[in-house]
Amino acid sequence: MAKEQEAVVLVKKGKLEFQKKPVPEITDPHYVKVQVKATGICGSDIHFYKEGAIGPFIVKSPMVMGHESSGIVVEIGEAVTKVQVGDHVAIEPGVPSRYSKETKAGHYNLCPEMKFAATPSVDGTLVKYYTSPEDFVHKVSKDVPFEENALLEPLSVAVHANRLAGTKFNDTVVIMGAGPIGLVCGQVARSFGATTVIYVDRNDFKLDVATKSFGATHTINSNKLNPASTVPDEITKVLGPKKGVNIVLECTGAAACVESGIQALVAGGTFVVVGMGGDSIPVPMNLISMREITIKGCFRYYEGDYDIAIALLTEGKITLKPLITSIYNFEDAIKGYEAQLDKTQMQKNIKTVILGPQ
Amino acid sequence: MAKEQEAVVLVKKGKLEFQKKPVPEITDPHYVKVQVKATGICGSDIHFYKEGAIGPFIVKSPMVMGHESSGIVVEIGEAVTKVQVGDHVAIEPGVPSRYSKETKAGHYNLCPEMKFAATPSVDGTLVKYYTSPEDFVHKVSKDVPFEENALLEPLSVAVHANRLAGTKFNDTVVIMGAGPIGLVCGQVARSFGATTVIYVDRNDFKLDVATKSFGATHTINSNKLNPASTVPDEITKVLGPKKGVNIVLECTGAAACVESGIQALVAGGTFVVVGMGGDSIPVPMNLISMREITIKGCFRYYEGDYDIAIALLTEGKITLKPLITSIYNFEDAIKGYEAQLDKTQMQKNIKTVILGPQ
Amino acid sequence: MAKEQEAVVLVKKGKLEFQKKPVPEITDPHYVKVQVKATGICGSDIHFYKEGAIGPFIVKSPMVMGHESSGIVVEIGEAVTKVQVGDHVAIEPGVPSRYSKETKAGHYNLCPEMKFAATPSVDGTLVKYYTSPEDFVHKVSKDVPFEENALLEPLSVAVHANRLAGTKFNDTVVIMGAGPIGLVCGQVARSFGATTVIYVDRNDFKLDVATKSFGATHTINSNKLNPASTVPDEITKVLGPKKGVNIVLECTGAAACVESGIQALVAGGTFVVVGMGGDSIPVPMNLISMREITIKGCFRYYEGDYDIAIALLTEGKITLKPLITSIYNFEDAIKGYEAQLDKTQMQKNIKTVILGPQ
Amino acid sequence: MAKEQEAVVLVKKGKLEFQKKPVPEITDPHYVKVQVKATGICGSDIHFYKEGAIGPFIVKSPMVMGHESSGIVVEIGEAVTKVQVGDHVAIEPGVPSRYSKETKAGHYNLCPEMKFAATPSVDGTLVKYYTSPEDFVHKVSKDVPFEENALLEPLSVAVHANRLAGTKFNDTVVIMGAGPIGLVCGQVARSFGATTVIYVDRNDFKLDVATKSFGATHTINSNKLNPASTVPDEITKVLGPKKGVNIVLECTGAAACVESGIQALVAGGTFVVVGMGGDSIPVPMNLISMREITIKGCFRYYEGDYDIAIALLTEGKITLKPLITSIYNFEDAIKGYEAQLDKTQMQKNIKTVILGPQ
Repeated sequence: MAKEQEAVVLVKKGKLEFQKKPVPEITDPHYVKVQVKATGICGSDIHFYKEGAIGPFIVKSPMVMGHESSGIVVEIGEAVTKVQVGDHVAIEPGVPSRYSKETKAGHYNLCPEMKFAATPSVDGTLVKYYTSPEDFVHKVSKDVPFEENALLEPLSVAVHANRLAGTKFNDTVVIMGAGPIGLVCGQVARSFGATTVIYVDRNDFKLDVATKSFGATHTINSNKLNPASTVPDEITKVLGPKKGVNIVLECTGAAACVESGIQALVAGGTFVVVGMGGDSIPVPMNLISMREITIKGCFRYYEGDYDIAIALLTEGKITLKPLITSIYNFEDAIKGYEAQLDKTQMQKNIKTVILGPQ
Repeated sequence: MAKEQEAVVLVKKGKLEFQKKPVPEITDPHYVKVQVKATGICGSDIHFYKEGAIGPFIVKSPMVMGHESSGIVVEIGEAVTKVQVGDHVAIEPGVPSRYSKETKAGHYNLCPEMKFAATPSVDGTLVKYYTSPEDFVHKVSKDVPFEENALLEPLSVAVHANRLAGTKFNDTVVIMGAGPIGLVCGQVARSFGATTVIYVDRNDFKLDVATKSFGATHTINSNKLNPASTVPDEITKVLGPKKGVNIVLECTGAAACVESGIQALVAGGTFVVVGMGGDSIPVPMNLISMREITIKGCFRYYEGDYDIAIALLTEGKITLKPLITSIYNFEDAIKGYEAQLDKTQMQKNIKTVILGPQ
Repeated sequence: MAKEQEAVVLVKKGKLEFQKKPVPEITDPHYVKVQVKATGICGSDIHFYKEGAIGPFIVKSPMVMGHESSGIVVEIGEAVTKVQVGDHVAIEPGVPSRYSKETKAGHYNLCPEMKFAATPSVDGTLVKYYTSPEDFVHKVSKDVPFEENALLEPLSVAVHANRLAGTKFNDTVVIMGAGPIGLVCGQVARSFGATTVIYVDRNDFKLDVATKSFGATHTINSNKLNPASTVPDEITKVLGPKKGVNIVLECTGAAACVESGIQALVAGGTFVVVGMGGDSIPVPMNLISMREITIKGCFRYYEGDYDIAIALLTEGKITLKPLITSIYNFEDAIKGYEAQLDKTQMQKNIKTVILGPQ
Repeated sequence: MAKEQEAVVLVKKGKLEFQKKPVPEITDPHYVKVQVKATGICGSDIHFYKEGAIGPFIVKSPMVMGHESSGIVVEIGEAVTKVQVGDHVAIEPGVPSRYSKETKAGHYNLCPEMKFAATPSVDGTLVKYYTSPEDFVHKVSKDVPFEENALLEPLSVAVHANRLAGTKFNDTVVIMGAGPIGLVCGQVARSFGATTVIYVDRNDFKLDVATKSFGATHTINSNKLNPASTVPDEITKVLGPKKGVNIVLECTGAAACVESGIQALVAGGTFVVVGMGGDSIPVPMNLISMREITIKGCFRYYEGDYDIAIALLTEGKITLKPLITSIYNFEDAIKGYEAQLDKTQMQKNIKTVILGPQ
C-alpha cells in the first residue's frame, strides 16, 4: 500500500481541512521529488477559499492548496541532470504540455493544457512530498531561508510583468497597489533600471514597507487625497517638471486604479495588467487611442522568469524577508488561511508563509 | 491686399457656411502650395459638425473644414526637392513640430504640438489653395483620379493600424465595422498577408461592399444573429476547425464591439483601437490578463504610412473607387455635410467626396 | 526478431550503400510511425557525401541519409491527438530536447541537444518506416503529391529566413543564389509582401526558373556583368529611382555574395545568412557600422514555420513542382546522389527527389 | 565687419593650425549660441589628423576640429523654449535634416544629409562661440565640471550601443577594448543591469581603470594569455559554470577582436559593432548561422541617447572623471593633438580634454 501524507485540502468554498493523500512516486525519468519546507499564501488561494472561484477557474471538487513553495530535492528520476538530491529548490507550480504550439513558441504560460498547482482541479503543494519535472524546480541558494525562497513564485510574477513592460534604465513607473505583488513589482522595476517608482495604495503601513524595502521613490495614499485632487493629478505633482509616467503596473484589479493608471501615462506608455480583477472594467478608450497607449495582459511566468528572480536574490537586488509578516507551522495552516479573512488583521499583513510540514 | 478664396467653415456646432479667407503664401522655403482638387468627408468632420467636439478637441472658434485632400502642386519654396510644380499629390493633413521628442523618436503622430487640419483650431483644406511642408504632400499617380487620391488619408490610417497590429501572412483578422476605415483596414490586412478576414457589421449593404471589394473572406451581420449566438460564438462557427483570431481591428468605437472583439481573440492576440469612441468603455480585463492580450491605441499615421498606402494603390492591391458612394461639387459642399446627418441615406453611403473648387 | 528495412547509408565520406536496419517501433505514447513516400536531396547531404563534414558536423560512423521527407501515418502512439492513421504528413526532421532553455524560450532550433535526421550521428529518413513525435509531423493536403510535400522542409527554411528578416509589404529583397533555397526564399518574400525581388546568380537556367515560377521581378547574372559594373551597381541600375534594398537573403555562402549583398543594403537594412559557407568570410564592417546594418544568422526552423509553409501551399502562394528537376526511385537512390557530383548535369538541375521505398 | 574668433583647424592630413574664423550669428529662431568651455579629443579626430580620412569621410579642405564639447548658452533665438541663457549644456554635434525619411522614422543618426561637427567638411566646435539648434544642446548640471559634461558625447555613443544591444538585467557582456568608448560602454552595461562585464584589452593600465571605475567584473589581458589559450577559451574559464556571454560590444575595430567576440557568444547572442575598423573584416559565418547570432552596426546616437547619458550622470551611475587623463588649455590644443601620436605616452592615456578658450 502506498504511503500517505497530510494535505491541506479545500473541500469546497469556505471549507479547508487536513486530509490523507498518497505520497507521489517518480514515474517519469525527468521528474524529481521535493520535500516541501515552506509555502506562501497567495491572494488567489483566498479567492478560491472565500468565493470558490476566480473567473473561469471554479472549485468543483476537493483540491490540495499551495503553489508558492520551496523545499529540498529528496529523489531524482534517472534522466535528471539539472538538480541533485539535497539541492534546495523553488517549485515552479505550473507544468504545461510540451507539445502545444504555445509552449513550443516560447509562451508556455499560455498553454491550454497547463496543469497549475492549486488551480482547480490540480492538487497543490501543501503536502510533505511533491513531484515535478526537473526543469520546473529551480536550484536556489542554501543561504536564503526556505520561507524567502518560497516567495520566488510571486517574485517571478513581478519579473514577468516587468519583462512584458520592458522596464529599463530611466523609466518612470507607477505601481498600483502595494500588496505583495505590487511590492515586488516595484523593486524589480528599480532593479531593471527605473529611476522613479511611485506606489499608489490606501494603506500607509504598506506604503511604508514600499519606501523602506521595495524601492519606492514616492508614495501616494489615494485615500488621503484632497477631494479636488485625482490620483493622476497627484502623480503629476509628485513628478514635478520630470518626464511623465511611461509604465504602469496595475496590481489591484480595481476599476479606479485601472482608470487612474491609464490616465497617468504619457503618449506611447505601457500599462500592464498584473492583478486579476473583474470581467468588465471600464477604460478611457479615447485616451488609449490618442496617446497610442499599449495595454498588456500578464499571466504567470515563462522561461527565464525564475532565473531572473533567483539572480535578483543572488545579486542582492531584492530582499524578500520584509514581505513576510506572518508565519504558521503546517499543522496550523488552516488558521493561516482563516486569518486572511480578517480585514483588520490584514491591514498590517503582507504575506503569510506556512513552514513545513516537518 | 492679399487675394481671397472661398472656404467651407464650421462656424460653430451645427453651422457650416462659405467664408472668404486669404490665399496663403509660401513663407518657408520648404513649403509648397497645392491647388486642392478633391476632399473626402470623414466621420470626425461629422462629429465636429453635429456635436462640436471629439473628446478633448472642441470647436471654439470658426474653422475651415477638410483634411482628406488631393490636388496639384502649383508653387514650391526655393528649398523644395521632393515635389515639382504640376505633380499630383495627396496632402498629409497633420504637421508636427520638428523639435519635439516624439517627432524625433519616430512618432510624430504623438507630437503634442501637432497642427492637424480641421481639428480645432487649425484650418482645414476645403479651400482652393493650401500650403504644406514639402514632406507632408506625397506625389501620387496621375492615372488615379483626384477623388481616389484624396482617400489616401483614410487608407494611411488603415496602413498605420495594420502596421501596429503587425498583420502578416496567414493571420486571421476580424474587422469590427464595415465603414470606410473598416473597409480599408480589411483590404490592407489582406494585402499584408492575412488569409482570413472576417467583417462584423449591422449593415448588409456595407458587408456586401466588404465582400465584393475589400477582401472579406467572411461576414457576420451582428443584427441578424440568432439571439442565442454571440459575435464571438459566430466567429468560432465561421472559422470552423481553423486556428483562432489573432488580430482584431476595432473601427466602430462601440462598447459591444470592443467586448466581442477582445473575447474573439486567441491567447497572445492583438486588439487595435482604430475607432474613436467613448471615454469609458468596459473591457473583459480577466480575459486580457489570462490570454496575455495586447491592446494598442492607434492614432493617425506616421513616417512611411503614406508611402505604403501609395504603394498599395500603385501595386493594384487596393482600389478606393468602391468607397465613393457620393460626390458633390465644392459649391454644394455644405449639402454634402448635411446629407451625412440623414440616417436613412447613410445606410447606403460609405464615403462622400467633394470635388474642386474649380 | 525485429523486422528489417532497407536504408540508404553513408558509410563514410564518398561511400553510400544500402544496408538493412531494424524497423523502429513506437515506444513513446506521443510518437507516430510514418511510411516514407518521398525524400528530397539537400545540399547538406552532398556536403556530407563529398566532404564527410559541414563545419563542426563530421561523419564519424555510418549514418542513414535523408531529412526532407513526406509520407503516410501508419501507426500512432496512444497519447497522439494531432494526426491520425492515414494522414499524409511532412516530417520535420529535427527533434529538440523538451527541457532545454532554448526550446522552452521558443528557439528549439538552437537546442544544444537537438537530434536532427541525417546530421551526424543521427539516422535519417531514407527508409520505409520512420518514427517521430506527433508534433514533428505536419498534416498536409492529400491533393499535393508526396514529392512536393517532401519539399516543405526547404520551404520551411525559407519561411524561417523571411520571418527573421521581417519581410513585409513593399519591401525590396535581394536573393543571393537561385538554388532551391534561394528560389523558395524569393517566392516566400513575395508572399510576405515584397514588391521587388531581385535574384543574383551565375546560372541563366536557374534565373529563368526564378522568373517563371519563383517571383523574380528582376534577375542579375553576375557572370555576365560588364567588368566595370559590380553587383551592387547593377542592383542600383535595376531599381532605378525606386527605394533601395532593405533585405538581403544570402543563400550561397560565397564570400563575394556576402560582400555584394551587404553593400547593396540601405541604412537600417537586414542581411540574413541563410546559406552555410565558410568559417571566415570578410564583411565590409565600416559599412555595417555607418549604415547600422543588421546581420542575422538563420538556422533551420522553429515553431510555426512548417504551419506557414503549409499555408503557403494551401493558399496557392507557392508551387514547389518547378523545383523538382530530377526523380529517382528508392532503389536508384545512390545514383541520385552520384548525379549531384556531376557539375555539368547540375547546371540544369535544381532539386532531386527520391520516391519510395515501395 | 563680423567679429572673429580663434579656431583649431585641420588644414590637411598631419597639419593643424590656429586660424581666425567669423563668430557665428543666430539666423534661425530655433538656434542658440553656446560659449564652448571644454572639448574632448576623440579617436576619430586623430584618424583625420594622422590619415586625413575615416572610410568614406575624407579631409579635402581645412576644417575646424572638435565635436565633444560642453559650454554655456549665451544667446537664444526667439522661438527657443528648451534652454535659457546661462544654462550649462552639452552640444550634440550632428544635426540631421528635419525632412529626411530616416529622421522622421526615428533614426536621425542615419540621415543622409547629416551635418556632423568635425566630419569633413563641416566645421567643429573648437572655437569660442558655436551655434546649434535648441534641441541639439542638452541642459546639464552645473555641479558637473565642463570637462566631464564634454564627455557626454562618448557616453551617448555607449548608451546608443547598449540600447541597440538591448542590455538588461542579468546579462553577461564582453567589452572588446578598454579605451574611452569601451570603458563607458561597460559602465553603461552595468547600469542597464548586466551582472557580468568582462573587459578584454592588451593594456593593464586601462584594464585597471575598467576595474576601478567602469564596472569590470572580470578583465582579460589578451597579450598575456598562455599561447594555448584563446580569448573565447579564457572567457569560458572566467565565467566558470555561469551562463555564457549574450552581448559583445566591440570597441576596437580589430579583426582579432571581432572574431573572438563572435566566437564567445551563446546561441541567440548579439554583437554590436561600436568601433570603426576596416573595410573587410573576416567573421566566422558558419557560427553566426548555426547560433543565430545577430550583428548590429552602431553609428553615433539618436533621440533619447543624450537624455539617458545625462540621467546616468545625474543618478550617479557613472563618473566620467576617471576617463580624463590629460588636460590642455585651448592655446595648447595643438600640443594636445600631437601628444596623441606618441604611442608610449598613450599607453597611460585614456582621454584628453581641451579647456576653453577663455
